[in-house]
Amino acid sequence: MRSSISLMQRLGESCGTVGKNSAYLSDGEAMAAPVTVYGPAISPAVARVAACLLEKDVPFQIQQVDMSKGEHKSPSFLKLQPFGQVPAFKDHLTTVFESRAICRYICDQYTDRGNQTLLGKKEDGAVGRAAVEQWIETEGQSFNPPSLAIIFQLAFAPMMGRTTDMTVVEQNEAKLAKVLDVYEQRLGESQYLAGDDFSLADLVHLPNAHFIVNRTNKAELITERKNLARWWDDVSTRPTWKEVVELQNQPRPS
Amino acid sequence: MRSSISLMQRLGESCGTVGKNSAYLSDGEAMAAPVTVYGPAISPAVARVAACLLEKDVPFQIQQVDMSKGEHKSPSFLKLQPFGQVPAFKDHLTTVFESRAICRYICDQYTDRGNQTLLGKKEDGAVGRAAVEQWIETEGQSFNPPSLAIIFQLAFAPMMGRTTDMTVVEQNEAKLAKVLDVYEQRLGESQYLAGDDFSLADLVHLPNAHFIVNRTNKAELITERKNLARWWDDVSTRPTWKEVVELQNQPRPS
Repeated sequence: MRSSISLMQRLGESCGTVGKNSAYLSDGEAMAAPVTVYGPAISPAVARVAACLLEKDVPFQIQQVDMSKGEHKSPSFLKLQPFGQVPAFKDHLTTVFESRAICRYICDQYTDRGNQTLLGKKEDGAVGRAAVEQWIETEGQSFNPPSLAIIFQLAFAPMMGRTTDMTVVEQNEAKLAKVLDVYEQRLGESQYLAGDDFSLADLVHLPNAHFIVNRTNKAELITERKNLARWWDDVSTRPTWKEVVELQNQPRPS
Repeated sequence: MRSSISLMQRLGESCGTVGKNSAYLSDGEAMAAPVTVYGPAISPAVARVAACLLEKDVPFQIQQVDMSKGEHKSPSFLKLQPFGQVPAFKDHLTTVFESRAICRYICDQYTDRGNQTLLGKKEDGAVGRAAVEQWIETEGQSFNPPSLAIIFQLAFAPMMGRTTDMTVVEQNEAKLAKVLDVYEQRLGESQYLAGDDFSLADLVHLPNAHFIVNRTNKAELITERKNLARWWDDVSTRPTWKEVVELQNQPRPS
């Protein structure tokens, strides 16, 4: 597996704050850095895409977007991501938005690189892909809303100087617990969510699960469920995910 | 295009209420009805899957699930859909859950049937599929939550004898309006959400948009935005969608 040094090299000088002179879609920039992820790695959706690129061994750079200055609402950013959300994503002249759609694109476009079973084994065809897709959708529809609400209240709100709303935390903890009861059962039947192999089904959960375990006092939602804890110990210690966490812990460029 | 009579024939006698003697996964049933969608067509998620099957010209039957009797929480149903939600879906012995994952499966599995560009043109590869996927994700993440909340309050709650919470309606109307402003801009640039062709990007929106326009007093969210109105007139009059609406308007089997 690659070392974190190589990641630093890939990310190193290419990192910079997006300024008003940035030309997101210029041919020159596209040629210099084929795959660019726009947004801070601390964002769970940005981290999701970074994790996928690392699994697929696709070189990329992260371009900072200073959301405190409203750069994500600038005309040039809105050309990449019409809703003004991070991440935006560009591969040569192709732009894609929505983190889970970007992850699928990376797997479909770079079939022969890195981990080749993130969307199921090729020989399993549509059935294998569906086994993965149903859990990606479950993450987006059932896991993400309550886990993101908890993360926002317990991790991001304090960082932003906002008051934590404990009613929101409690309501979403109850919702998330019900969802995780089903995950617990599933992970008693198979090693990973979609079967015997680590896949996008697992990967898409990493950013929010990481925050729940490491940056809130609600870790037990995962660590006190036996099968989920076994799964978390496995997926969260993958070298690619550890690289994403290093990236999140790096000081932001000024 | 097929007539609604053929749909009725396909659906006719196979429809029935799931009872406690149903064996969802029996080989006999699987052989008799290769593709089965479990749940009431009035459910937006069930309607989404039915629309996709009709576009792909894949014969199917709908198996009723009496949610008032809690059949969606029965052990046999939970084998198909571990969260106890509709639809569940079975194709021979393959089961898939989550409506958008089921739609993708139908397109991937039946590539040569019916509409062959629902996930982009084959020659456009991963880039074409990503153009569709980013709007499927947008529907799931940004369009579905506020539109479903409005539909629930204004259409389903009265049917269920519940009180409508107008605060929820107003909050979600404001959220949905912002999302639809972006759709309006997008549909000023291309005929359909993903480009020149009708695709899953459009199809996944049909059930909630239909309810908003036809079963609430909030139709203007769509009809008073020029490009969105043009798009809606187009996609909602597709013969396949009209068949789904007929299905929704059928009396439920007793």
